[in-house]
Amino acid sequence: MTRRYNFCAGPAALPEAVLARARDELLDYQGRGLSVMEMSHRSDEFVAIAEEAEADFRELLGVPSNYKVLFLQGGASLQFAMLPMNLLGQGGRGNFIQTGIWGKKALNEAKRLGFDCHVAASSEPNGHTAVPAADALTISDDAAYLHYTANETIGGLEFDYTPQVQRNDGASVPLVCDMSSNILSGPRDVSQFGVIYAGAQKNIGPAGLTLVVVRDDLLGNAQPTIPSLFDYQLLAEAGSMVNTPPTYAWYLAGLVFKWLKADVGGLEAMDAINQRKAQKLYAAIDASDLYSNPIARHNRSRMNVPFVLEDARLDGAFLKEADEAGLLNLKGHRSVGGMRASLYNAVPEEAVDALIAFMADFEQRRG
Amino acid sequence: MTRRYNFCAGPAALPEAVLARARDELLDYQGRGLSVMEMSHRSDEFVAIAEEAEADFRELLGVPSNYKVLFLQGGASLQFAMLPMNLLGQGGRGNFIQTGIWGKKALNEAKRLGFDCHVAASSEPNGHTAVPAADALTISDDAAYLHYTANETIGGLEFDYTPQVQRNDGASVPLVCDMSSNILSGPRDVSQFGVIYAGAQKNIGPAGLTLVVVRDDLLGNAQPTIPSLFDYQLLAEAGSMVNTPPTYAWYLAGLVFKWLKADVGGLEAMDAINQRKAQKLYAAIDASDLYSNPIARHNRSRMNVPFVLEDARLDGAFLKEADEAGLLNLKGHRSVGGMRASLYNAVPEEAVDALIAFMADFEQRRG
Repeated sequence: MTRRYNFCAGPAALPEAVLARARDELLDYQGRGLSVMEMSHRSDEFVAIAEEAEADFRELLGVPSNYKVLFLQGGASLQFAMLPMNLLGQGGRGNFIQTGIWGKKALNEAKRLGFDCHVAASSEPNGHTAVPAADALTISDDAAYLHYTANETIGGLEFDYTPQVQRNDGASVPLVCDMSSNILSGPRDVSQFGVIYAGAQKNIGPAGLTLVVVRDDLLGNAQPTIPSLFDYQLLAEAGSMVNTPPTYAWYLAGLVFKWLKADVGGLEAMDAINQRKAQKLYAAIDASDLYSNPIARHNRSRMNVPFVLEDARLDGAFLKEADEAGLLNLKGHRSVGGMRASLYNAVPEEAVDALIAFMADFEQRRG
Repeated sequence: MTRRYNFCAGPAALPEAVLARARDELLDYQGRGLSVMEMSHRSDEFVAIAEEAEADFRELLGVPSNYKVLFLQGGASLQFAMLPMNLLGQGGRGNFIQTGIWGKKALNEAKRLGFDCHVAASSEPNGHTAVPAADALTISDDAAYLHYTANETIGGLEFDYTPQVQRNDGASVPLVCDMSSNILSGPRDVSQFGVIYAGAQKNIGPAGLTLVVVRDDLLGNAQPTIPSLFDYQLLAEAGSMVNTPPTYAWYLAGLVFKWLKADVGGLEAMDAINQRKAQKLYAAIDASDLYSNPIARHNRSRMNVPFVLEDARLDGAFLKEADEAGLLNLKGHRSVGGMRASLYNAVPEEAVDALIAFMADFEQRRG
């Protein structure tokens, strides 16, 4: 077995220690004679796994007790629909900050469902290379929540501040954050948010699991005729087990949380590593004549580093040689082209060092 | 490692050969240096895995070319909502046969969403111990589809015929079947159905994956304002990849299909094994004074065998001793009590033999 360095944007690299443990107990979980995949979700064994995963997640991120943590299916994209259906049942409008493709998808899905929406700010004028300034947000008087995408996975644009959310009448507006691609990358003050949600397949676990952290006072506002599996309150009351949850993904997420706590040492330690990884790579890009990244420095994503080659005709050779050098999945998103190196938590610093060395060597030979 | 016999109703036993292969390539899929979990769903490697799984499923079940096969999330319970939202966009009414708890959930979810529904027949008068006779179905004149539950997992009631579906005006009515707990248990004539759907966690793979087989002419009838991830047509056009699918569950399902083809020898062979397993266990129950099963013989489920002990005070001892004998998860559903042995495809005949031997021994000692 040879593990290679995986820079995929998602589904993404998982910690090798997590995969090894999953492998070792795949056919027999702790002597019980069956796989976690084969357990009833209502069995004592699985309920213990599920509860421990939630407790570890709460501890890592410091989730206050007046928030529920839901383990759901459907990805962040299903939340694009669930959020307005849950939060706008009593009226009001969703307000959206637009900083790229994912934020736009969230807005468009709310519109598709028939909800009138307000764009509070957009970085479209600057080509999504810098997030709107904190004082440039215009919240509507009927704002029921403000939605934003903390990190745009495709554009490589990350907020460096937490948006202000107050209406003209002084009412505080719940902040709803798609944190799919930077959750758990460092500490966060959860109490600033109304809802945080994240598809698992970047920093949490395998695809097929979605985490939703929702403040208690936002439960119970759903439209009464939405699908029962959409209703945060029903889901919260059932401990995310209205029906069978994605048990194996939940278990793997729990292993990732344990790894973050025990092997990494928590989110502050993870943050420091992530800062170092990203700074190294951006410094290498900025110092080169071949590679470039267009994002404003203070908004450069620590998780997804898109870059282009000065001569796009070298793209094919770059990707081929990178793959041969054991550096996988560096191709940029099909909608933007170029390259993208995703440096999620599970991508080790050695991977970044190897990438930087390869990039320098490639530039010297082909640049 | 000691594997034990697992009679769980779902998530349920998986073939040991499948788990062993998943274990062996968990950290490194075929020398690529990464896990299937870590692959982009749009990578060549994963697309090949996904397409092969679909092709094997189509071959096994004989799915005609005018049907799409969708690999989705949310379980059968999410289909309870998606089905009326997809099939009733042009009007008409859902008709439902009621034979137990799951069929009732499907009906209630459609009602919750605001759809007027018609009950075509119900086995409630006989306590859900026999499915309604084929000639007792009353289809409404505006029937857009007829929904039924091929096998009631909790009650242990299985249809021994495929319902007739014609309206008074002669129009044929698409048949929609929840096949969650008996799909792939034997051959089926898919052409008799408009939609077949199944949560994976019984006969297909791990929880978190749902298969939907839908006839082409039923696509494109969705209400325009439903969530985009609900729209069968959008999902079909995107090859089930409107957003990131549950890749690892999809891969495991593919391994199960390969096992069914190569190790078992296809669905006719599987059917013969399943018949034998179920007949043995029902014969043992019928021959005993301690155990009994209330279901009419021709509707007894081959997949889920509920039984009660003559003296319910023995339940605890039965379960404890069974567990100690390596026979896991025989407790009946919390809504009905008693015992339930689920005999899905992956439960080997030896497991049933061991259960029967244990039951006889228990009866002799404690009955």
